[in-house]
Amino acid sequence: MIPHPYLLFLGDAPDPLAAKVAQGIRDWRPDFALGQLRLPGCKADMRIPDMTLAEAHAAGARTLVIGVANRGGVISESWMSVLVEALETGFDIASGLHTLLRDQPALVEAAARTGRSLFDVRLPDRPYPIANGEKRSGKRCLAVGTDCSVGKMYTALAMEKEMAARGMKASFRATGQTGILITGGGVPLDAVVADFMAGSIEALTPDNDADHWDLIEGQGSLFHVSYSGVTLALVHGGQPDALVLCHEPTRAHMRGLPGYQLPSLEALRDTALQLAQVANPACKVVGISVNTSGMTAEEGDAYLAELEARMGLPAVDPFRQGAARLVDALDGI
Amino acid sequence: MIPHPYLLFLGDAPDPLAAKVAQGIRDWRPDFALGQLRLPGCKADMRIPDMTLAEAHAAGARTLVIGVANRGGVISESWMSVLVEALETGFDIASGLHTLLRDQPALVEAAARTGRSLFDVRLPDRPYPIANGEKRSGKRCLAVGTDCSVGKMYTALAMEKEMAARGMKASFRATGQTGILITGGGVPLDAVVADFMAGSIEALTPDNDADHWDLIEGQGSLFHVSYSGVTLALVHGGQPDALVLCHEPTRAHMRGLPGYQLPSLEALRDTALQLAQVANPACKVVGISVNTSGMTAEEGDAYLAELEARMGLPAVDPFRQGAARLVDALDGI
Repeated sequence: MIPHPYLLFLGDAPDPLAAKVAQGIRDWRPDFALGQLRLPGCKADMRIPDMTLAEAHAAGARTLVIGVANRGGVISESWMSVLVEALETGFDIASGLHTLLRDQPALVEAAARTGRSLFDVRLPDRPYPIANGEKRSGKRCLAVGTDCSVGKMYTALAMEKEMAARGMKASFRATGQTGILITGGGVPLDAVVADFMAGSIEALTPDNDADHWDLIEGQGSLFHVSYSGVTLALVHGGQPDALVLCHEPTRAHMRGLPGYQLPSLEALRDTALQLAQVANPACKVVGISVNTSGMTAEEGDAYLAELEARMGLPAVDPFRQGAARLVDALDGI
Repeated sequence: MIPHPYLLFLGDAPDPLAAKVAQGIRDWRPDFALGQLRLPGCKADMRIPDMTLAEAHAAGARTLVIGVANRGGVISESWMSVLVEALETGFDIASGLHTLLRDQPALVEAAARTGRSLFDVRLPDRPYPIANGEKRSGKRCLAVGTDCSVGKMYTALAMEKEMAARGMKASFRATGQTGILITGGGVPLDAVVADFMAGSIEALTPDNDADHWDLIEGQGSLFHVSYSGVTLALVHGGQPDALVLCHEPTRAHMRGLPGYQLPSLEALRDTALQLAQVANPACKVVGISVNTSGMTAEEGDAYLAELEARMGLPAVDPFRQGAARLVDALDGI
């Protein structure tokens, strides 16, 4: 686990979107987001206190989290001097960048000299076993999508937040770099070696209290030919008791695949459920989470109402409406 | 590609089964199997000439292939001296062992000194792209199984052999260590990083002549929760035009998973076809390949006849009957 609270490094983010990791931490783990550190020209603002390294460390921050995508895959000189100074101030550093911290000699040297840690969440930090398929105690809910990037992480985080508000036992389980940085731990599934994918998810969602829910972040889609194998490892390694279907209704084709149409939600429901029941025959599809940000409020409401009538499942946009009805739908499972 | 022909190193194989890699080369690429090298105590015999390193090299052998599983995952001293001498004699060495040749200082030193190559087919030897899902020319047939180790490699090799005998254009495409050693190249899919699995299979089965068939070696099973993600990457990266269902009817449970029953062949047919049609809507299930070695000949014949009547597909044991009817079933695709 990455020590928290964090100082969020926004660098010279050219626009707010470049700082989406920082925004995710700010939105979902506000207690972790003690302050932000911005360089000249930064166009992002988390609306939390701007702090120097010294101020943040004195206030209790333990890790400088790189909350921004860098340009061109290289860590610039202006970043590097801040990162070295952070280590010297007493911070660990965490990053999800493709460019690894551990490949920067200046950072490796400074970390060794100061006794601090570099967390590259892009890559697994431990070996994983081969999955054994054994039934585990506790309950698990997995978000599966018609496509990549349709709101699976958001849905699982929103359900975790709603459960926490109700006093239920719940843990968001990150399976991607952003989710790991937001919550401080998880499995970067896209970087795990094929044979160990399902085993890594078993390790991520171990035995737990009978009334505890793991909310497992989905990845890819069973219908996305580039990543479908990753998704099936999640379905079988995660052993979900409940599936939430995730969708973005305005997309013209599968992300990055111009020749591929999105499947219907019915096709996703049937395919995902059939495959999930291999690992857990009791698995059920409990609801639908739709990202309606590409529609007007009226269009979104009408779409959700039609979907709900058609499929007989609660259909919500958790960003606009919260995840309460999805959590309600877990009742009795 | 691993240079051939080979000298097959059988070491001190404790029984014939330990030399199954050598047996596979002997069975499927007899032209590659120039000779065998056995140490005292070896209980395996490929029924090809015993040769010293010098004799085999003089006869044209170019690679010493480790055709036997080692004991306890370590390369013994008695092996090591032979391997060093092989490099000094002018051989490359190829191995599918978990213990990597490249991790043995004595071998690395000798290979550098002699300018020879060490092929560790356990691990990928190049980076692979993310799959793009684009339609490729040529035709592809994939073996999919109800379980692991039910004869998928054997089926694809038998179909390749039958096609070659008929003068058809055909290439077995290896996706596992044994298949790679048998044919000299391929993708060790179980060791590929998750994001690149499907892309590695696209790279393995590129554009080809319109009447060329790739016979793709299957891995795992869509119903085996430890490895199903690997299998789905094959289904989507391989973009098969034809699927052959593989089965072993006497197995009591899924391999290594005592709590899991094998799916029916009907369930495999429906699930695999539905998923394969995401990448290739024209994909068809063309036949069934059954390993009947656990039955008497009469039981096997009766089982195959019943299966054929029930499912309306040719059902054969390619070891006992050859793969002619499976190849016939590709006609018109």
